[in-house]
Amino acid sequence: MSTRYSIGVDLGGTNLRAAVIQEDGKLVEKISGAANIGDRPEPVIDDIVRSIETLQSRYGKENLAGVGVGVPGFIRMKEGVIAGWGNRPAFNDYPVRDEIEKRLGARVILENDANAAALGEKWMGAGKDVEDLVLLTLGTGLGGGIIIGGKVLHGYLGMAGELGHITVSPNGNPCGCGNIGCLEKHASATAIASMGVLMWPGRNHSSEEIYKLAQKGNARALAVFRTMGEALGLALASLINIFNFPLYLLSGGPLPAWEFFAGAMMAEIERRSYTYRNAPTRIEKAVLGNEAGLYGAAYLPFQNA
Amino acid sequence: MSTRYSIGVDLGGTNLRAAVIQEDGKLVEKISGAANIGDRPEPVIDDIVRSIETLQSRYGKENLAGVGVGVPGFIRMKEGVIAGWGNRPAFNDYPVRDEIEKRLGARVILENDANAAALGEKWMGAGKDVEDLVLLTLGTGLGGGIIIGGKVLHGYLGMAGELGHITVSPNGNPCGCGNIGCLEKHASATAIASMGVLMWPGRNHSSEEIYKLAQKGNARALAVFRTMGEALGLALASLINIFNFPLYLLSGGPLPAWEFFAGAMMAEIERRSYTYRNAPTRIEKAVLGNEAGLYGAAYLPFQNA
Repeated sequence: MSTRYSIGVDLGGTNLRAAVIQEDGKLVEKISGAANIGDRPEPVIDDIVRSIETLQSRYGKENLAGVGVGVPGFIRMKEGVIAGWGNRPAFNDYPVRDEIEKRLGARVILENDANAAALGEKWMGAGKDVEDLVLLTLGTGLGGGIIIGGKVLHGYLGMAGELGHITVSPNGNPCGCGNIGCLEKHASATAIASMGVLMWPGRNHSSEEIYKLAQKGNARALAVFRTMGEALGLALASLINIFNFPLYLLSGGPLPAWEFFAGAMMAEIERRSYTYRNAPTRIEKAVLGNEAGLYGAAYLPFQNA
Repeated sequence: MSTRYSIGVDLGGTNLRAAVIQEDGKLVEKISGAANIGDRPEPVIDDIVRSIETLQSRYGKENLAGVGVGVPGFIRMKEGVIAGWGNRPAFNDYPVRDEIEKRLGARVILENDANAAALGEKWMGAGKDVEDLVLLTLGTGLGGGIIIGGKVLHGYLGMAGELGHITVSPNGNPCGCGNIGCLEKHASATAIASMGVLMWPGRNHSSEEIYKLAQKGNARALAVFRTMGEALGLALASLINIFNFPLYLLSGGPLPAWEFFAGAMMAEIERRSYTYRNAPTRIEKAVLGNEAGLYGAAYLPFQNA
C-alpha cells in the first residue's frame, strides 16, 4: 500500500479485532477472532501481536504510521498498564503496552476502549463536526469517553472518563467498583437484564428479549426501559451541566431500544439541566457501532504524529 | 508603577471589589464597596467602570496588561453576556462586557465568578503546583470552576462548570434552576440554613449559628453538617470518576465547619470512587478565600496575552 496507514486493535471481553485504516479514514481491512482471555495475560498479548503482524506483513512497514490498542479497564497512561479490569484480575498492573512493544519491536499507543470509541466517533463518526463530545458505551458495563479540543481527556493518570461509575441512585444497585447506584448498574445491557429478574421473578430474560417484549407493548418491559432512560438522563444532565459540550453520544447493544428509553431520558435531561434548556445540545446515537474503537485506536498514531 | 499589572474585578451579589495585581502575582491594592444591584444593570456597570478607572488613574495606563471581570451567573463567552443570573433577571442577556468596554474605551475579559476563583487558586493559591483542578465555591449558591491544562474549561458557549447543579439526590430539594436535588440545595450555606429549619422548626438559624451549635456538640447541628458532607462527597466522587484530576478544592463561608462535614464527605468519596481509591487525589481547602476571584480575574489578561 502506498498510502500511509495505521493499525487499530480493539480488545473486548471475549474477542479481538484489528483493522488497517488509512489517514483519510478509509478502513481497508478488518480481522477478528476470539481472544484467549483466561487466567494469564500472555496468550492475549500473543493474539494481539499476531493480529498486528498479520496486517503489517500484508500492507508493509514503510507506510505504517503506528499502532493503537484499545483495551478495557482503568489505564495508567504513562506506564501503559491496566490498573484494573473488573472481571480479569490477571491483567491488573500488567504492563500491556511494554509487552506488546517488546514482542512487536515497535511503538504502541495504549488507550481505554471507551476513550478509543469516543475518539473514533470524533474522527470519522457522529462527532466529525465538533471538537468536544462525550460518549457513553452501553454494554455489559457502561464506559465513557470525553473528547476535549479533539483529544481524549485522560486526567493525570489516565483514568478519566469513568462515566459508568457516576452515582445516579444514592441507594441504588451494588457495583463491583465498591459503590452503590452507579450508572452502569442502572443503564447497561446487564442492568436491563437485572431489572428483568425483578419484573419476571424466576426467569432470566436477556436485554434483547426484554427489548422484544417492549416492541410488543409489554408494560413491564416498557417500564424497564423507562427506568433505564431516567438513569441515563440524570447522568447526562449532570454531564451537560459540567461540560456544556455541543454533543453527547450513546452507543452499544441497547441502542435499538432508543424509542423505548429516549423519551424518559430526554425528559430527565430537560428537567435537570438548566444548561440544556439554554444551550442547544445534541443527544444522539453514535454511528460507527462496534467499529468506533477500531477507528479511535487507529487514529491515535496519526494524532500523535 | 513600572511593573506590568492588570486589574481584576469581582462582582458579587451585594458588593464589588477590584484589585491591582502584578504579573508576579503580587496584589498591590484592593478597593471594594457596595454594588448598586437593583432592577437595572446600568448602575452596576457604572460602579464597575468607576472602580477600574480609579485604579487605572493611580497606576497608569502604560503598564496595564488588561482588565478581567468576574460576574455571577451563566455566561455566553463569545458574546460577553450573562445568559442567566438566578435572582437578578435584569442582567439576563445584558451585554455586560460590551457595555464596560464602551464606557472604559478598553478591552475587557468577562468570566464567571467561580471560574475566576478556580483560576486564581491555580495561579497563586492551593493549585499552584497542578495544571488540572476543580473548585467548588460554597456560598449562597454553590459555584464550580474546572481548570484543565491551566485554563478554564468553558464548554462551547461558556456555561461549563455548573457543578452546583449536579443532581446528588434524585428526589431532593427543589432548585431555582428547575431541577430537584441539585448539589447547591444540599451543600451550600443556604442549604445548611434550610436544613436548620427542618431541625429546629419555627427558628431561623443562619449557617454560622448552626456551626456554633456544632462546635458545642449539638447532635442536630452535627447531623446537618454530616448530611452536607455526604452530598459533597457524592458529587466529588462522580467528579473524580469523570476527571481523574489530582486536586479538588473547596472554598466559601462554610469552610470553617470542615471538621464537621469532611469526615462524611471523605467516607462517601472513598466508597463511591474506585478512581479515588486507586489514584492519589487531594481534596483540600482553597487558600485565597474571597480574593481568589480577584486573582483569577486579574490573571485573565496575562493568560490571554
